[in-house]
Amino acid sequence: MPDSVLRHVVLFGFKESSKPEDIQKIVDAFKELPSKISEIKDFEWGTNSSPEGLNQGLTHAFMVTFHSDADRDTYLPHPAHKEFVDILGPHLDKVTVLDYWTKP
Amino acid sequence: MPDSVLRHVVLFGFKESSKPEDIQKIVDAFKELPSKISEIKDFEWGTNSSPEGLNQGLTHAFMVTFHSDADRDTYLPHPAHKEFVDILGPHLDKVTVLDYWTKP
Repeated sequence: MPDSVLRHVVLFGFKESSKPEDIQKIVDAFKELPSKISEIKDFEWGTNSSPEGLNQGLTHAFMVTFHSDADRDTYLPHPAHKEFVDILGPHLDKVTVLDYWTKP
Repeated sequence: MPDSVLRHVVLFGFKESSKPEDIQKIVDAFKELPSKISEIKDFEWGTNSSPEGLNQGLTHAFMVTFHSDADRDTYLPHPAHKEFVDILGPHLDKVTVLDYWTKP
């Protein structure tokens, strides 16, 4: 583990019309990316359980960890990532993405 | 480390009128919380460096880790957390908070 890592925080909210099985397919497809993109060094995800009501319509959180900006820059246009975005797109209502460097 | 942890993702955007020193005081105050609230098991933070432009006006990311819902429920109304919110409040323009359980 390096001294610092790059966290890529991805939050999604889905359309009212999207079915649970559509959302499950998206989650499953995202979970497949670490096996397809070696630049992903860590991956975790979960659904919102905050009691604060500040999730702004976002219900699913994913945290992808990289060890360099270059690895993140390889990930974004990677064919496997683009395939995922194609699956996601029709169901996406809201999205928030922040990247930050931190000491793990 | 338990099998699963509760991630508390907190994203802030600040007012145009807020000065860098105001924001620094907020960051410093947040960073003090792990020493004041024993329920916080891990803490990291950073400023947004994503090239995607999907940060929705949010510029600062904090990830607070708990080991139980009860610990998160102790944190939220904790006097030290409330003091922090008092420092934050006048400068806060946008906020997004999601909690999720995940395997670390």
